[in-house]
Amino acid sequence: MTFEFDEDMAVTPLGDHVWAAEISPGWNIGTIPNGGYLMALALSAVESAVAHPDPLTATTHFLGRVSSGEPATLEVEVLREGRTLSTACARLTQGGRERLRMLATYGDLEASEGPTLITAEPPSISPPEECIRNDVAQATMEIQKRFDLRLEPSVAGGAAGQPIGRPEMGGWIRFLDGRDPDLKSLALFADAFPPTVLNLERFGWVPTIELTIHFRAKPTPGWLLAWFASRFLIESHIEEDGEIWDSEGNLVALSRQLSRILPPSSH
Amino acid sequence: MTFEFDEDMAVTPLGDHVWAAEISPGWNIGTIPNGGYLMALALSAVESAVAHPDPLTATTHFLGRVSSGEPATLEVEVLREGRTLSTACARLTQGGRERLRMLATYGDLEASEGPTLITAEPPSISPPEECIRNDVAQATMEIQKRFDLRLEPSVAGGAAGQPIGRPEMGGWIRFLDGRDPDLKSLALFADAFPPTVLNLERFGWVPTIELTIHFRAKPTPGWLLAWFASRFLIESHIEEDGEIWDSEGNLVALSRQLSRILPPSSH
Repeated sequence: MTFEFDEDMAVTPLGDHVWAAEISPGWNIGTIPNGGYLMALALSAVESAVAHPDPLTATTHFLGRVSSGEPATLEVEVLREGRTLSTACARLTQGGRERLRMLATYGDLEASEGPTLITAEPPSISPPEECIRNDVAQATMEIQKRFDLRLEPSVAGGAAGQPIGRPEMGGWIRFLDGRDPDLKSLALFADAFPPTVLNLERFGWVPTIELTIHFRAKPTPGWLLAWFASRFLIESHIEEDGEIWDSEGNLVALSRQLSRILPPSSH
Repeated sequence: MTFEFDEDMAVTPLGDHVWAAEISPGWNIGTIPNGGYLMALALSAVESAVAHPDPLTATTHFLGRVSSGEPATLEVEVLREGRTLSTACARLTQGGRERLRMLATYGDLEASEGPTLITAEPPSISPPEECIRNDVAQATMEIQKRFDLRLEPSVAGGAAGQPIGRPEMGGWIRFLDGRDPDLKSLALFADAFPPTVLNLERFGWVPTIELTIHFRAKPTPGWLLAWFASRFLIESHIEEDGEIWDSEGNLVALSRQLSRILPPSSH
C-alpha cells in the first residue's frame, strides 16, 4: 500500500545532489503549502545525500511563498560527514527563486547510547475519543483531510472562533490513511495544529519565519500527542513551543517556531 | 573606550561578502572557543551584509573545532532582502575547512508593532549580591575572566562538583569591563553559563550540535538574568532551554541547544 505522505515526499534525482519534486496541494492551508510539509520534503532530499539515517535537529527559514501543484527543485550541500554526525544544507527553489533554506544534522538514534534522565511527563489531556474533531477545518483545508486530528476540549475554542485567552493548542494526531508516524513525518505534525494565537484573537495569517525541530526518538505506531504553547507575543512576533509524544508516552520531538501575526486585512 | 567584546567581534572585509577575523583566545573554555562567541562573530559578518539592523532568529550548527588565536574566514550569502526581513547564511572556515554554518533572519525591532501578550515572568532568584561567583571557573577559564557571572545558590552546586540532581542552571551575568549588553552579545550570554548537566553528573565534554537563539527585544543596560533548564536527556543527547531577561524585567532572548554528553574519558 502506498500512503499519501510517502507519495508526496517523492524526490527524483536530477543530478549531483539535486532533486525534482512536485509540491502537492494535499497539504495546503488555504492555497499555501504547510511549512512542515515543505520541511519534511527538504528532509527527504537530505536523507538521500547523507550517510546517517536519522535527523537529529533541523531548522528551516521560510523565504517566500511556495506554489502548490507546481514543480520545485531541491539542492543539498553536505557540510560534514563525520563518524557519528552528518550535517547538510538544503534549498528549495521554484522558478529559479529560493523559497526556503534548511540546516539539518543527522545521526543514528539506534546507535545512541549513554545516560537517560527525563524530568517531564506528557501533558495530561483527554483521550482521543473525548477530544474534538475540527470539522470546519476538515471541510475547508486540504491538509486537514489527511489527518485524524482531535483537539483537547479545554483548548479547542480558538479553532471554532471562541478564543480561550491562553495561547495554547494541542491534542491527538495521526495520518487518516493509516500510515505510521516516523521521524520525518514529525516535521509535518509539528506544524499541523491550529496556531496557539487562535486562542488569543482574530488574525489574518501567521507566517512562520523559522521552524526548528529536535528529533529525539523514533515514534511508535499509533496516535501522537502534540502540545503547543506560546509565552511571549511581543509586538506581533510570537514563539510557539511544541512537544510531540508517541503512543507509548515517549517524547519524540521538540519544536519551536518564530512567527509574525499579520492583521486580518492582510490575509 | 574600547571593550573586549567589540575588539574580538572585529571583522575585516576581504572581498564581496567575505571577511577575515581573528579567533580570540579570550572566550575560550579550556582551549576551545565558546560557541556563543563564534555565533556572535558570525552575526558580525551577517550584519555587515544585510539591510535590516536586528537579528530575530539565528541557528548555528557546529561542524568542527575552531582553533583560537588563529585567523578565520567568514563568508555570507544573502538569501532574502525583503521589505521587513532579511535572511542570510554564514560559514566560518579555518584552513579551508568549514567549522560552523549559521542561518539568520534579520528585521527591525524598533519598527515592529502589533499586539503584545506575555504570559511568563522572570524566574524568581536571589539578587546578584546574594549569588555565587564561580571562582574556580574564573581562575581557569579565559571566558569567565571577561564576565561578572553570579550563580543562583540553589543551582550553583553542579559548578562546584556537587550536583543538585536537577538539570538547571542560572543566575546573573554582565561584561566585567562595563560594556552594555546588546542583541549580538546575547548569543554569547546564551552559551556562557555552566551546562545544566553539571547538576546531574560528571561528564567529559558537552559539545553543542546546534544552537538556536530568538532575539526578542533589545536589552537595557545592566545585569542580565539568565536561566537554563533541560527536560530530556535521552541516550546522551540533551536539549538546553534558556531565557535571558534584562535589568528592567524584559524577556530579551530565548535559546535552545541540542548537545551530546561525552564520557569523562573523552575529554
